[in-house]
Amino acid sequence: MKIHTINFQPHNISIDIPQGESILRGALEAGVHINASCGGEGVCGKCRVIIENGTVADGISERLTREDIDKGYRIACQSVVESDLTVRIPVESSVEAGVLNLRKTPRQTAKIKQTDLNDLKEQGLFVPPVEKKYIELPEPSAEDRLPDVTRLVSFLKLEQGEHRLMVSLPVIRKIPDILREDGFKVTATLERPVQKGRKTHIINVQPGDASKDNYAIAIDIGTTTVYGQLIDLISGEVISETGDFNGQISYGEDVISRIVFAEKSDGLEKLHAVIVKTINGIIHKILKKCGCAVENISSITLAGNTTMTQLLLKINPRYIRRSPYVPAATLYPPIKAVDLGIELNEHASALVYPAVSSYVGGDIVAGVMGSGMYLTDKLTLFLDIGTNAEIVIGNTEWFACAACSAGPAFEGGGLEFGMRATKGAIEDFSIDPETLEPMNICIGNVRPKGICGSGLIIMVATLFEYGIINNLGKFDRDLDTPRIRENDGIYEYVLAWKKDTQIDRDIVLTEIDIENLIRAKGAIYSGCVTLLEEVGMSIQDLDQIILAGGFGSYVDLEKAMTIGLLPEVDPGKITFIGNGSLMGAKMSALSNHIRKNVVEVTKKMTNFELSETASYMDHYIAALFLPHTNLERFPKLQARLAQRKKNR
Amino acid sequence: MKIHTINFQPHNISIDIPQGESILRGALEAGVHINASCGGEGVCGKCRVIIENGTVADGISERLTREDIDKGYRIACQSVVESDLTVRIPVESSVEAGVLNLRKTPRQTAKIKQTDLNDLKEQGLFVPPVEKKYIELPEPSAEDRLPDVTRLVSFLKLEQGEHRLMVSLPVIRKIPDILREDGFKVTATLERPVQKGRKTHIINVQPGDASKDNYAIAIDIGTTTVYGQLIDLISGEVISETGDFNGQISYGEDVISRIVFAEKSDGLEKLHAVIVKTINGIIHKILKKCGCAVENISSITLAGNTTMTQLLLKINPRYIRRSPYVPAATLYPPIKAVDLGIELNEHASALVYPAVSSYVGGDIVAGVMGSGMYLTDKLTLFLDIGTNAEIVIGNTEWFACAACSAGPAFEGGGLEFGMRATKGAIEDFSIDPETLEPMNICIGNVRPKGICGSGLIIMVATLFEYGIINNLGKFDRDLDTPRIRENDGIYEYVLAWKKDTQIDRDIVLTEIDIENLIRAKGAIYSGCVTLLEEVGMSIQDLDQIILAGGFGSYVDLEKAMTIGLLPEVDPGKITFIGNGSLMGAKMSALSNHIRKNVVEVTKKMTNFELSETASYMDHYIAALFLPHTNLERFPKLQARLAQRKKNR
Repeated sequence: MKIHTINFQPHNISIDIPQGESILRGALEAGVHINASCGGEGVCGKCRVIIENGTVADGISERLTREDIDKGYRIACQSVVESDLTVRIPVESSVEAGVLNLRKTPRQTAKIKQTDLNDLKEQGLFVPPVEKKYIELPEPSAEDRLPDVTRLVSFLKLEQGEHRLMVSLPVIRKIPDILREDGFKVTATLERPVQKGRKTHIINVQPGDASKDNYAIAIDIGTTTVYGQLIDLISGEVISETGDFNGQISYGEDVISRIVFAEKSDGLEKLHAVIVKTINGIIHKILKKCGCAVENISSITLAGNTTMTQLLLKINPRYIRRSPYVPAATLYPPIKAVDLGIELNEHASALVYPAVSSYVGGDIVAGVMGSGMYLTDKLTLFLDIGTNAEIVIGNTEWFACAACSAGPAFEGGGLEFGMRATKGAIEDFSIDPETLEPMNICIGNVRPKGICGSGLIIMVATLFEYGIINNLGKFDRDLDTPRIRENDGIYEYVLAWKKDTQIDRDIVLTEIDIENLIRAKGAIYSGCVTLLEEVGMSIQDLDQIILAGGFGSYVDLEKAMTIGLLPEVDPGKITFIGNGSLMGAKMSALSNHIRKNVVEVTKKMTNFELSETASYMDHYIAALFLPHTNLERFPKLQARLAQRKKNR
Repeated sequence: MKIHTINFQPHNISIDIPQGESILRGALEAGVHINASCGGEGVCGKCRVIIENGTVADGISERLTREDIDKGYRIACQSVVESDLTVRIPVESSVEAGVLNLRKTPRQTAKIKQTDLNDLKEQGLFVPPVEKKYIELPEPSAEDRLPDVTRLVSFLKLEQGEHRLMVSLPVIRKIPDILREDGFKVTATLERPVQKGRKTHIINVQPGDASKDNYAIAIDIGTTTVYGQLIDLISGEVISETGDFNGQISYGEDVISRIVFAEKSDGLEKLHAVIVKTINGIIHKILKKCGCAVENISSITLAGNTTMTQLLLKINPRYIRRSPYVPAATLYPPIKAVDLGIELNEHASALVYPAVSSYVGGDIVAGVMGSGMYLTDKLTLFLDIGTNAEIVIGNTEWFACAACSAGPAFEGGGLEFGMRATKGAIEDFSIDPETLEPMNICIGNVRPKGICGSGLIIMVATLFEYGIINNLGKFDRDLDTPRIRENDGIYEYVLAWKKDTQIDRDIVLTEIDIENLIRAKGAIYSGCVTLLEEVGMSIQDLDQIILAGGFGSYVDLEKAMTIGLLPEVDPGKITFIGNGSLMGAKMSALSNHIRKNVVEVTKKMTNFELSETASYMDHYIAALFLPHTNLERFPKLQARLAQRKKNR
C-alpha cells in the first residue's frame, strides 16, 4: 500500500494517507474542516479545494467551471490521491483560517491486531487440527492379507508414527474402493484429538495425492450478522470471506425474542433450519469465490453467543431467559457438520466454541482465544461491543466476565436514521463550530442514507466537545442555525438536507438518539467499572484494552473516551481485533493448541451477573452523563474543555 | 425337572428320562428298537408297547382295541412318561428279543454349557457395559448457576465417583426438560468405555427412577437364520428370545451369492435394508413377548460372519470374494443403533463383534468369547458347524483359526428331503438290522416332512455301522427289502412311506445325500487335522472340544465320530454351547470385561487359509470315506465293527 503526504494550506498541517483515498478523507483525518454536506458524492460541490502541487485523479464535477478546473480547483470528496500533494482550502470551503485551535482533533484509532500467522509459526502453534497425508501403501497379496482399514492404519503407525488412530464407519465404507482407485496410493485426512491421549481420527481418504488441498471454514454466528471465512490450512491464509444477515432476524431482532419464538411449536426447528440455511449460503459463496471443492473442506469451526449456539445445535434455549438463567450446556461435543445440516462432506467435523454462561457465549471465548488474551500476563480488559456488550477482565491465570445489554445503538439500531455500517452510512463527521455546518463522510462516498454506530459516537463526541450539546446530551437552545430545530418537542440537528440525501428526507440526529447512545455507553462503562471492582481492581490497573466488535476498527478512540464509552487511557494501550468471534474461530482452525486450550480457558472464566451486583445500578446512573457525573475520571477531556472555554 | 426310570423288557435295559418325554424317545435313548414309521404321530400304530408297571398319560390310539388297552397296550410314541415304568416290547414291535448286541447304542450327547451367570458374578465380571444410575440433583438457584449438563456431570463425578464423562448432542438436547420433569430427580444411563482410559458416555437421561429397567439385546446374524435375545441387565437373565430367517435369503442362499448381489447397483443398499428389517422384526417380537419398553433398551450387541457384518454396516463386501480375499475391516467403531436403521431409541449403542479375516468372522470371535475359550489354559478345539465350518484351535495365549466350506448338509440343505431342524424333521433314527424297518423320531412328534442335519448324521452312522452302506456310502446291493431301491440309477432308502408322511411322497435318503454328507464332514475333519498340523499338534493333544452351531445339541457324539465328522475322543471332553455367536453377543452385553478383551483376543487369532495349505487337499481326500481312509484313527469304531462282524 503506497502512502502519500498531503499538506493542507493555509493550516500547514500534513497527513499521511494511502493512495486512492479522497482528499476529503485526508482532511478529516488531519482535523482540517471542509464543508461537505453530501457525504462524498460530489453533489453539493461545497468541498472545493485547490491542488497546488501533485496529482489527483477525478475530482471534476459539474459544479466546477472550465476556468475553475484550469485554476486547479477540484471537489475534495471526489479527488483521489495519486501522489504527495499540497492542497489549499479556499475560504468558502473552510472555517476561518487561523482558528486552528478549533480544528477537529486528528482521528485516533486503535492499532489493529491481525492474526499473525508468522507468530503462530514461530511459536510452533501453526498445527491445524486437520492434516492430510499422502501415502503409498503396499498392495495386498497372498502373503499380506491385512484388511484394508488395518493396512492403512498400520502403515500410518509404522511409517508415519501416527498412533491411536480411529476410523469411523462412513470412512470404512469408502476405504476399499478408494484404495484401489489409484493403486493403493491415497491421501488420508487426519483430525488430531482435542484432548490429550484421545484418538486421532482418519476422517477421509481420497485417491492419489490430494494433500495440498486442505481447507477449513470459520464462522461467526452473530444475532444479526453471520460471517464466514475460507482458510487454506497449508498456507494459513484466508482465501475468501463474506457475511450475510442471520436469517433468524425475521423471527425476532434480539436474543430474547428468538428464545420466545423457539418455545413455540416447531419454533426451535425453524430457527435451527434458518441459521443453518444462512451458514450454507455463506459456505456456498466463499467456495464459489475461489473455486474450492467442498470435498477438500475438512472442518468448520463456529462461534456464537450461547443462544445462537443452542439454536444452531437445536438445543432449546428456553431456560436461558428464565431465572436463574442457566444454559443447557457450555461444552459441546465434537460433531459432524452434516449432522447439523451443514452442507459439507460427510467427513467434515464441526467444532463449536464452548460458552461460559447464558450471556457470555462462545463468541467471547473465541475472542479471548483469538486475541491471544489467554496467553498474556498483562491485565487486560476485553470488550466486545454489539447489541450486547461482553466484558472480560483478566490475564492468563484468571478471567472475570460479564455481559450487559447495550441496546442496538452501536449497530445503528434504535436511532431515527440509524443504519448498519454499509454504503451510505455517515461514518465520520466534523462540524464548523462557527457556522455549525457539518462535514459528513459516508461509506462508499455516496450521498447519506443514515448514521452508523461509529458515526454516531463521533457526532455526539464532537457536538459535546464544541458545547453544542451539554453533558445531558441536550442541544444548546441559544444557538442560531437552521440546522438545530425543534420537531414535535424534540430537538434535533440536521446532518444533511433532503436534497443532499439518497432518501429524500432530512437526515437528523435527535436528542432521543443521543439519549439512547448515553444509555448504551453507560451500561458498558459501568459494566467495566463494576466488574473491575468485583475483582478488586480499577481502570488504572489495566495494562491493555482489546476492543472487538463490528464497528470498532473505525472508532475514534478519543471520541469514544469523550462520550465516556471507554475509560480514558493511553490510546497506545488499546488494540482492535475486529470480529473477535470470527478471529477465534479462524485461530482454532489453524492451531490445534488453541482447540486444546479452550476448555481449560473456559474453566478459568468466572461469570458475574451484573444485574445482581448491587453497585452496578449506582455505577450505571453515574455513567448516564457525557462523559460521566464525575468529569475528573476523564482528565484529558476536562483539560480540553477548560481550554476551549478559555479560548471563547 | 423330574426324572423317571424306564425298564424295557425283555431287554432288561433301563434308562432315565425326564417326565413328559415319550416312551419311544426313551427307547431310542436306551438303544432299544421299536418299529416306528410315522415319526411319532400315532398314525402307523406300529410302536405298540405294554405298560407293565407305572403310569403314562395318553398313548391311546384308534389302532388299539378296547381289549388291547385293557391289557395295557399303548402307542409308545404317544405315551407320556409320568412315573417310573416297566415297559414290555411285544414281538411285533421289536427286533428279535435277545439280539441285544445289535441294539442301538445309547445316545451320547455333549454336555451343554450354559452361560453361567453365577460364574460371571463370582468372578466379578457381571458388570454390564451399560448401567443406570438414579440421582437427585440440587436445583439451580442464583447461588448455583451450573449449566444443566455440567450439573449432571459434576454430581455424578463428585457424588458417584464417575470420571471422564461425555455427553452427546442428542442427550444434551433432552437434558434441560428431563431434569425439570421430576424436580431434578433423574436416571442417567452410563455406557462404560471399551478401552481403558476412554470416556464413559451418558447416553440417556430419564425423569425419576428408571434405574431398574435396563435391558440389552443380543443378535446373531446367521447367513440363513437370525436369532435375538432380550437380556435383563439387572438380573442378567434372558427374558425372551426368538429367531427368524435372514431376509437376505431371497437374494442368494450363501455368502458368495450375497456378495455377488451386493455388487449390483443398489444391491448393497437392498441387502443392508433387508437384514435390518429382519433384525427389527426380531426386536419387535422379543419386546412384545415381555412388554418391555424400547426406551429401556440401552444397547444391542451383534455378531455375524464377516460378510453378514459388512452388509449390516453397509460396507461393500466386494473384495471378500476376490483374491487375496481381504475384508474391508475387522474392527468396527462403536455406533448408534439408529444409524444402522435399527429401530431402537436414539441413545442405544450398537456393538458389532470384530472379525479375524474374510472367512473367520465376528460370529466365531463371539463364540470364542462366549464359550470362555479365551480364558482357558486347556488346548481347545472350537468347532462351529453350519454351512461354513469355522475351526479355532488354541488357548488363552494363542489361537489358530480357519474356515472351510461344508456345504448346507448339516443344516438340512442340499438333500433330496433335507429340511431345517423344525417340526416334522426326522431328528433321530434307528433301524432293525434284520427287517431293515426304521424307527424315526420327528421334532414335534408329528409325521415326517423331511430330514434335518442331526438326523442325517445318525442315519448315515447307523446304516454304516450295521453294514447297510459301505465306507463309500453305497448301499449293500444284496439286501432284500423294498425300502432299499434304485431310482433313476441312484440307490436310496425309504425312511417313510408316502401314507406315513405329511408330504404325500415317500421320504428317502439317497446315496447322493450320503455323498454330500461325506464331503461336508470330510471338509471339516480335514480342516481340523490340517490346522492342528500347521501349529505342530495333533488330535491327541486336545484337552477339550467345544461344539457350536444350530444342530449341535442334538448331535449324537458317537454317531458324529462314526461318520468321521469328529475325531474319536473321550465324549467327556466335548462341550456343546449351541449358538456360539448368540452366546458371545449376550456375554458382551452382560460383561464389559468381555467387550474390553475382545480386541486383544482377535489380535491373538491367526488366520490360516486352508485352500492354500498344501496338505489340506490330501487330508480332505483321505477323509472322503466313512469314517476315513485310515480306520485306525477311529479305534473304538474299529473295535465295534470287528465285533459286529464276528457276531454275524
